[in-house]
Amino acid sequence: MAPPTTIQLAARQRRIREAFDARSLDALVVTAPANIRYLINHDGSAGVLVLTADAAHLLVDFRYTEAVARLQASPAACPALRVWDVPASYDEALLGCLLDIGVTAVGFEAAHVTVARHDWWERSTRARSIAIAFHATERVVEQARVIKDAAEIAALREAARRLDGVARAAFAAAKAGVTERQVAAALEGAMREAGYERLAFDTIVASGPHAALPHYRAGDRILATGDLVVLDFGGVLDGYCSDLTRTVSIGPPPPEARRLYTAVYDAQQAAVAAVRPGVETTAVDGAARQVLEERGLGAAFGHGTGHGLGLDVHEDPRITRPRPDVPSVPLVPGMVFTIEPGAYVAGFGGVRIEDDVLVTDAGYELLTTVSRELLAL
Amino acid sequence: MAPPTTIQLAARQRRIREAFDARSLDALVVTAPANIRYLINHDGSAGVLVLTADAAHLLVDFRYTEAVARLQASPAACPALRVWDVPASYDEALLGCLLDIGVTAVGFEAAHVTVARHDWWERSTRARSIAIAFHATERVVEQARVIKDAAEIAALREAARRLDGVARAAFAAAKAGVTERQVAAALEGAMREAGYERLAFDTIVASGPHAALPHYRAGDRILATGDLVVLDFGGVLDGYCSDLTRTVSIGPPPPEARRLYTAVYDAQQAAVAAVRPGVETTAVDGAARQVLEERGLGAAFGHGTGHGLGLDVHEDPRITRPRPDVPSVPLVPGMVFTIEPGAYVAGFGGVRIEDDVLVTDAGYELLTTVSRELLAL
Repeated sequence: MAPPTTIQLAARQRRIREAFDARSLDALVVTAPANIRYLINHDGSAGVLVLTADAAHLLVDFRYTEAVARLQASPAACPALRVWDVPASYDEALLGCLLDIGVTAVGFEAAHVTVARHDWWERSTRARSIAIAFHATERVVEQARVIKDAAEIAALREAARRLDGVARAAFAAAKAGVTERQVAAALEGAMREAGYERLAFDTIVASGPHAALPHYRAGDRILATGDLVVLDFGGVLDGYCSDLTRTVSIGPPPPEARRLYTAVYDAQQAAVAAVRPGVETTAVDGAARQVLEERGLGAAFGHGTGHGLGLDVHEDPRITRPRPDVPSVPLVPGMVFTIEPGAYVAGFGGVRIEDDVLVTDAGYELLTTVSRELLAL
Repeated sequence: MAPPTTIQLAARQRRIREAFDARSLDALVVTAPANIRYLINHDGSAGVLVLTADAAHLLVDFRYTEAVARLQASPAACPALRVWDVPASYDEALLGCLLDIGVTAVGFEAAHVTVARHDWWERSTRARSIAIAFHATERVVEQARVIKDAAEIAALREAARRLDGVARAAFAAAKAGVTERQVAAALEGAMREAGYERLAFDTIVASGPHAALPHYRAGDRILATGDLVVLDFGGVLDGYCSDLTRTVSIGPPPPEARRLYTAVYDAQQAAVAAVRPGVETTAVDGAARQVLEERGLGAAFGHGTGHGLGLDVHEDPRITRPRPDVPSVPLVPGMVFTIEPGAYVAGFGGVRIEDDVLVTDAGYELLTTVSRELLAL
């Protein structure tokens, strides 16, 4: 698929400019790579973007200059982009750029800039009597990214759709006698074949007692009859993340495994069914949590129900219990997030079922469509 | 291989305590995941460590409690570890922990803590009249990590050694008619088979003109006779990173390709030969750079010569030109870093050759041993 066009980028940048105009800022310094990519299509591990009222200034070093030149010659070019070469220090180059373009009230991303970097900016402007004031801003670009535009929804839909075949490959590979690592290798090979540019996160293949560890990866344990196996995987397509979890049984599931599975399945269905515009994120979490609590599994479900999905694999909105540090927000069409309740029993194992969901005007669209029935492999 | 033992962890923690004693701190708050792993063997995407004079306090949420309990029951247990459950916000839990253990002069990692997080700490302690002062520290744990201990050297040596077979798999896969992505899939499958737990970074397979982009990944381009192909890949074994680059020719190399290859080869040999205790990092870079400048390729080599390798794939020391923002340091036995000069010619292609090097008392040990001769595949 094609990256966002010049026109789409201009619309994104307009929203950010409105936000920093409202704060009386002359410019916003963007340092988070995903935010830079969102605004100008540049995909690099390094780079600093300075967005002003009428231009976008990208600071990059030698490693990226050729890639940026190619991008600017394409239909995905960023409008009014000026490229600044960074010969050594990004922070020196940034000060030089800000001085040269003559901005004085400069916003920065407080959730990404470290204390050490900020201290350097403050010390250096003071020492050189430079009249630039740096103002902390809070997740300005992230807030825009919460509601996906048409190009993003198309990318997320396709990224999720391709997990169908990947899941089939995993189900074919997972059987008694193979190691978790071999299943992970099959999953990752299938993700490459499906065209993903990279993994969205470290693949989890957690079998038997390992399935009780929500963030286990994949090790040397050999799958055995009677195991539950949690398979959690996702790929990145055109920058956008997908994320799917299925739990399978090796051989016929023992009654305890079936009971656990049914509880998580019902919880997941309840949360998905709750999704529609206006419903609070905490209510979606509550729908899953209530089912698990009713089955005596409240304490076994210790994490949140889901997280936003986009250029980052964990972004806003977060679908959690009411928490002082995570705002509960009403769902809006264009939000995309996971719904992934689980239940974990130390020494025995665990179950997690996860899908990617788009909020629509009418309710929701499931982007991942792999069967959720308990498979006995 | 086994993770560091309790005794080895104690030695690492002792060095950190000496550093913060010298700064009159009661405790150091460690938030960088690699630094936490280095000090207590906990491997998670979340967690906060508070190291005091006589204990290590680990704050983790539900997802990691079971994994930590297992670790503490093993020979790799952290000495004097107290685990604090984080029910919701890590920062709330951190304040609670600091109050409870009664520390007041608290160091934090300025290179990792964001301005937003630090502001929350300052605001919250002020609002609640809590007498804790937060002091910025600069790379205290990173400085200890620069000199690898015996357990780390063993892990790095094995992580590098296993790239031998991976490189052979790549050479078998790279031929005219296959796509870059197919070669990347072969590389990544071989890394899984070799037992790496994850990729150290996104695999690069850059063919023909793409080889002129130092940070390209792998796309749909089909390899053709006459191409140079840059293969840059690495895996993580027991937490430690490996990183190798070889450049191959599809069919017999054209004269221009051979000339470029020979120049980079000679530059790489010169830099490796310069490695011994006491030599400055900038001198190692200079050895490579001088060769390329003499061949008229100074401008084609726009990046640094190498980077430290350990729990992070890019860490100190950095092997660069003299730069105001990167200290030049004398090499010390136990340092491990890459040596990877390159030359990039827009529209034509590029060459990079990279090995992992350990500084020894006598000079150096090459940890990666794949042949550096130009292969025609």
